[in-house]
Amino acid sequence: MSANFSFQSLAECSQTKARAGIFHTPHGPVETPRFMPVGTLANVKTVTPDQLKSTGAQMVLSNTYHLHLQPGERIVAGGGGLHKFMGWDGPMLTDSGGFQVFSLSEMRKITEDGVTFRSPHDGQIIHLTPERSIEIQNTLGADVIMAFDECPPYPASREDVEAATQRTYRWLERCMTFHQRSDQALFGIVQGGVYLDLRAQAAQELAKLDLPGYAIGGVSVGEPPELMADIVRTTAPLLPREKPRYLMGVGTYREMAIAIASGVDLFDCVIPTRWARHGTAIVQGERWNLKNAKFREDYAPLDETCPCYACQNFSRAYISHLVRSQEILGYTLLSIHNITELIRFTQKIREAILSDRFATEFAHWLN
Amino acid sequence: MSANFSFQSLAECSQTKARAGIFHTPHGPVETPRFMPVGTLANVKTVTPDQLKSTGAQMVLSNTYHLHLQPGERIVAGGGGLHKFMGWDGPMLTDSGGFQVFSLSEMRKITEDGVTFRSPHDGQIIHLTPERSIEIQNTLGADVIMAFDECPPYPASREDVEAATQRTYRWLERCMTFHQRSDQALFGIVQGGVYLDLRAQAAQELAKLDLPGYAIGGVSVGEPPELMADIVRTTAPLLPREKPRYLMGVGTYREMAIAIASGVDLFDCVIPTRWARHGTAIVQGERWNLKNAKFREDYAPLDETCPCYACQNFSRAYISHLVRSQEILGYTLLSIHNITELIRFTQKIREAILSDRFATEFAHWLN
Repeated sequence: MSANFSFQSLAECSQTKARAGIFHTPHGPVETPRFMPVGTLANVKTVTPDQLKSTGAQMVLSNTYHLHLQPGERIVAGGGGLHKFMGWDGPMLTDSGGFQVFSLSEMRKITEDGVTFRSPHDGQIIHLTPERSIEIQNTLGADVIMAFDECPPYPASREDVEAATQRTYRWLERCMTFHQRSDQALFGIVQGGVYLDLRAQAAQELAKLDLPGYAIGGVSVGEPPELMADIVRTTAPLLPREKPRYLMGVGTYREMAIAIASGVDLFDCVIPTRWARHGTAIVQGERWNLKNAKFREDYAPLDETCPCYACQNFSRAYISHLVRSQEILGYTLLSIHNITELIRFTQKIREAILSDRFATEFAHWLN
Repeated sequence: MSANFSFQSLAECSQTKARAGIFHTPHGPVETPRFMPVGTLANVKTVTPDQLKSTGAQMVLSNTYHLHLQPGERIVAGGGGLHKFMGWDGPMLTDSGGFQVFSLSEMRKITEDGVTFRSPHDGQIIHLTPERSIEIQNTLGADVIMAFDECPPYPASREDVEAATQRTYRWLERCMTFHQRSDQALFGIVQGGVYLDLRAQAAQELAKLDLPGYAIGGVSVGEPPELMADIVRTTAPLLPREKPRYLMGVGTYREMAIAIASGVDLFDCVIPTRWARHGTAIVQGERWNLKNAKFREDYAPLDETCPCYACQNFSRAYISHLVRSQEILGYTLLSIHNITELIRFTQKIREAILSDRFATEFAHWLN
């Protein structure tokens, strides 16, 4: 691993594979386990960087596929790179665009070279390869960049998944060859669908490559939750202990707790901001629709134990009023709260691991 | 005037009727002349109270008509009143609902008693009278409340405007009789349409009533700009010198400068937030559409001289990207900038008046 990046384990749980650590990056440390908010188009929707900082956010994601289409990586680089362009001075991560190409674009054609698809933005034909993905991510300038992978849909035949997993490995080798920036850490992605032996094999092969970090991909594309748990339990422990492990696209309490118990360190999900824009608050493990009539005259904060700006300054009744009136400020306040809540959940787990209380205190999430 | 309110004149321009002063309210001072942002539904659209404070906002408006329909004044009072409900601890003002009843509602019927109209919110028939408007505003709890007035459309016959102006006077007397809260200042509103003699007569009659403040209403309902200037030049000087004067619904540079030269102290307008939501920035007197291609790679701040959060942290290129992508954060940043800009304009005029440079330095806005 480059001198710019290191993962330091501070404590391990005596009953599970959970660990608390610090992932050091050129833009500062990330205390793990940690939920990472998603800023698809170089902003976390409805939230300023100042507000985002106040949620406890450390590493923030942005999406290569979306930024390549709008405004284009050249414009981001012209603005000083992703951090400066969007005003976030903490650690950042970009995905490779692979997931979006396979889930969002139309008319895609996959060859050994890469993927060709039609841009939903302007209809233009775009050809994305491992080299092109790395080139775009190098230009964007996040601290962590992701290998370009083929993410098969669920369900898919074992034959198709095996072919995609092997191609993902070959594409990873091409990414490693092409990537040269020592201030960016290239993470590999374990694929393998719901086939545990393919997952195990992929994890073992990737582990040999001495990458600065590893991700588990393709576990939030529709498979049942119990399969997700099996995949993570099989895969995470096979990845190198001395490197950070990142479970992509996962951000519910239960999924995060189970993954942490398997040794995962990092998570991301669009749920907190997407739900916020639908008027939904995440409160101590529950999902509340603020449009519900019972909140109209409820003058308590969303969560009395929550330190976020929304909970410290406004009532459920006020946020309900804003959401009912479709006032954007309501979505901003709910986004701030929801992000804070998911980060706090991973922070509480971290503190529990540090004093070896995780397996008992979070037992209800693990079963 | 109640001991809770006073207007202190600090300086007067030697060449115009402009003055710099302080309007003291139970929630703090308002330095005049001052632009006041509009928070229609108990929030300034897309902006948190913290962000609003950073724009230099002192007194903030909210709309009685809108709040009566949603969430209803009872719910606002249950939340501790308007200030606490929306998290704004500075001075606040509510309008009477008159302007909205006459401009927004359908099927309205005007009698001497009041106005009956159909709620666009839920189709309910609502009867609003001077007493009811004051009762709602007493319940909402702003520092300044406005008399319920009849705001005739433009154009309207002299006969119709004269009748409306006289009814507005009788309604004002009913508002004064009904209003009892000493921690709220009731302002009267001068109507009279474009008929300068009716305006002058109304101003002189209202001046005799020793109200804690006076407003000039109905000057932004479609009449040509030169008529607006004539109305304000005729009306403002007839209002008591020792009371604050408020020109309702006005917020362009030229209109504010001309009104200040006639002795007006306070302004409000939805322009800064409405334009922001259309991707428009107000920059040093100009109106910029951030979707314009020329901003795509323009890495300067909107205005290098502006101290606002948007200008201190982001480029035109970034805001252009957000606006092109319809990202809400773009509207938030433009709202913060536009509000700051209009407040700064009135602050600069205030400083110029204090050192008697107004008539020369702002001459280009006065002709």
